[in-house]
Amino acid sequence: DPQYVNFDPHNQIQNLPIGVKTRGCDGYPDEDSDESYNLSVSEGQAVLRSVTVWGALRGLESFSQLVYQDDYGSYFINKTEIVDFPRFAFRGLLLDTSRHYLPLHAILKTLDAMAYSKFNVFHWHIVDDPSFPYQSRTFPDLSNKGAFHPFTHVYTQSDVMRVIEHARMRGIRVVPEFDSPGHTLSWGKGQPNLLTPCYKGDVPSGSFGPVDPTVDTTYKFMESLLKEVKFVFPDSYVHLGGDEVSFACWQSNPNVRTFMEKMGFGKDFTKLESFYMESIMNMTAALNRTSIVWQDVFDYRERIPQDTVLEIWKGETYQAELSRMTQAGHRVLLSAPWYINHISYGQDWRNSYAVQPQNFSGTEEQKKLVIGGEVAMWGEYVDATNLNPRLWPRACAAAERLWSDEEKTLDADLAFPRLEKFRCELLRRGIQAEPLFVGHCKHEYDGL
Amino acid sequence: DPQYVNFDPHNQIQNLPIGVKTRGCDGYPDEDSDESYNLSVSEGQAVLRSVTVWGALRGLESFSQLVYQDDYGSYFINKTEIVDFPRFAFRGLLLDTSRHYLPLHAILKTLDAMAYSKFNVFHWHIVDDPSFPYQSRTFPDLSNKGAFHPFTHVYTQSDVMRVIEHARMRGIRVVPEFDSPGHTLSWGKGQPNLLTPCYKGDVPSGSFGPVDPTVDTTYKFMESLLKEVKFVFPDSYVHLGGDEVSFACWQSNPNVRTFMEKMGFGKDFTKLESFYMESIMNMTAALNRTSIVWQDVFDYRERIPQDTVLEIWKGETYQAELSRMTQAGHRVLLSAPWYINHISYGQDWRNSYAVQPQNFSGTEEQKKLVIGGEVAMWGEYVDATNLNPRLWPRACAAAERLWSDEEKTLDADLAFPRLEKFRCELLRRGIQAEPLFVGHCKHEYDGL
Repeated sequence: DPQYVNFDPHNQIQNLPIGVKTRGCDGYPDEDSDESYNLSVSEGQAVLRSVTVWGALRGLESFSQLVYQDDYGSYFINKTEIVDFPRFAFRGLLLDTSRHYLPLHAILKTLDAMAYSKFNVFHWHIVDDPSFPYQSRTFPDLSNKGAFHPFTHVYTQSDVMRVIEHARMRGIRVVPEFDSPGHTLSWGKGQPNLLTPCYKGDVPSGSFGPVDPTVDTTYKFMESLLKEVKFVFPDSYVHLGGDEVSFACWQSNPNVRTFMEKMGFGKDFTKLESFYMESIMNMTAALNRTSIVWQDVFDYRERIPQDTVLEIWKGETYQAELSRMTQAGHRVLLSAPWYINHISYGQDWRNSYAVQPQNFSGTEEQKKLVIGGEVAMWGEYVDATNLNPRLWPRACAAAERLWSDEEKTLDADLAFPRLEKFRCELLRRGIQAEPLFVGHCKHEYDGL
Repeated sequence: DPQYVNFDPHNQIQNLPIGVKTRGCDGYPDEDSDESYNLSVSEGQAVLRSVTVWGALRGLESFSQLVYQDDYGSYFINKTEIVDFPRFAFRGLLLDTSRHYLPLHAILKTLDAMAYSKFNVFHWHIVDDPSFPYQSRTFPDLSNKGAFHPFTHVYTQSDVMRVIEHARMRGIRVVPEFDSPGHTLSWGKGQPNLLTPCYKGDVPSGSFGPVDPTVDTTYKFMESLLKEVKFVFPDSYVHLGGDEVSFACWQSNPNVRTFMEKMGFGKDFTKLESFYMESIMNMTAALNRTSIVWQDVFDYRERIPQDTVLEIWKGETYQAELSRMTQAGHRVLLSAPWYINHISYGQDWRNSYAVQPQNFSGTEEQKKLVIGGEVAMWGEYVDATNLNPRLWPRACAAAERLWSDEEKTLDADLAFPRLEKFRCELLRRGIQAEPLFVGHCKHEYDGL
């Protein structure tokens, strides 16, 4: 509690008055939330000023990190004048709770550490092929039959509310992703007739492909699901996925082929995917929510609703993609270079730190369309056993890139000692953050 | 407690009688310990037989892993007849407590997991350049001045005794490594005049190199230290290091150059290192202990005491090195392909599993000289925050290679489901073992 931070007896700071200018929109953070703050610390006095409560949270975080302790246990802070605001409005972190189930506790802990690093969006990739842990009110069979286990490996409605509230208290938005039409194998278990039956020759093979985009029941189901999502998740954004759709199953299915013919799509299945995505993006817009989709949707069809946010995940070509998408006038999120589920030996945080999201050919207006980026921790090889040391402090490199002024943060060697110190602070706060190199912290992780 | 394992009421097994043939040498395990056991489970009756108490421990471990639980909580075991013994007598795991300090708890936990995987040697790389956490009785300044912190980042005598006892109870030997003459920077802080002062031209530069092998005080110090090591560590082996000695500092020092001339070593500093290593290997032999040294010592001088065990750490040429060392009649430990501090994305346990320690050109007699191998977890990027998920279940691949018959364990795809199941067992036993791929365990790590 910063009110009780004590200093040199002659110049003790007895409290930290906080002045917040407006009270509008402080129930839940959104894309326009002003996170700026000014912090002034002088002899015997400290003041924090912000425009919104979200800015005050960022300022308190900085304040707490400026306080240090001497060998006798007294707390100190140096004189400082800070004028601070984020470079990007969207600073996200993705967790994948489908490839492995992450216990509620692991998600809450991640939100804590996100706040320490000033991340402000939790992108919850909540369902995917392997499992459907979201316990739906409308369609309880989705998790009853599609979760790894219907009781122990699910997120109940109260679990989800707890995540949202824990995030909100830290100024973090929760953007859920219900990825379709691909990545939906687990959905099919609890929702018959949703997925496309694949055919071998003239007969169904018994296996299933992406969501079937040719039947009305699919759109009725998606509309009900999205209505529930709107009801449960207060954020103005919903991630609709749209990535990596395999066309082989659609192609094998005679009904799909008939539908393609009727619609005049020829043999171009990207048109079928676009048709489906457009439908659910329109549904989402009708629910007064902004869609985020993976880059595939744009790559297939450049004419998509203008306010759709596009997220880049393909690594090799991301700069060209940034140009194209912003030229088409879309807001863009960059994730491709921040897939930190990928690991290598040594200090790979330096790769994350070197990323410059606005370093692509385009006008100033185009560059402004890059609203931020996301660190993605995909779950193929990650669960609660290794999540924290893989995330922290590696994710902090992207966090600084997304918050701080570019020119002041060009040199990774200058960042290194700060990151080392911050990692020790994370340990002290109970985050199992792994070491950057040889050395020690005053308060080590005890592993108990 | 296996005495209370219950089964189908008609065929309940009420206890597991254990017959141990001999009572000799069961105070502390050694290289000749017989770890074989026979386990027989039939209707209503189970018997475990072994030659030594160490074999009984291995059998109990297998028994515990054969027991499974049904959905109602009852325990079962299938009928089985097992005749089991290890392929290699030395199945080691190295932890590095100098580059990062590992709290006692982390070491004890590692010993638990080692026992589950039938590792039988804990190679404690206890000191190195960055820190000297071993609190010596004879030379307390070594840790007072050379540890990261003299109180919080040290292993007291009672800590060391606790490690040895915890290991012994699990049939695990503790082999300490006091690596010299290189890797000793931290030693110099508490032991003046031990390290070679480096020179810049005619004057000392202020920095220090390896142990100074030209002065009597060095050998007196090493003899006292090794006497203490013999007193503290009951194992018949001591690891003396001898790797990666940089000659630049020796070369810069005029006293060393004079000594080289006097000894007729010319410009060949490998002779100086050999001179030093031979001295401390002889000391070790006089203390009735067997030396293990890193391969460098053999590479520099093929004539070294015949009973010295050589450990291979250089990755690219390890098969040729196996040939050369065994041709010279030395017993050999293989560690090079099992540096599992090195990580990469995906299922890299398969690389460890593919290693065949006897796959080199040589006679049958030569192959018998390969007494085993070691998984090495060097500490540059590892401390208690990430140790367990990096070790487990990755180290199990080498554990199976070192215990099991080669012909029955050639196929990694057949090992995969067993390893997945074993990983879930590790989780249930409280080991933070990371996932091998997409999926779940009945009892997940809760992260609390």
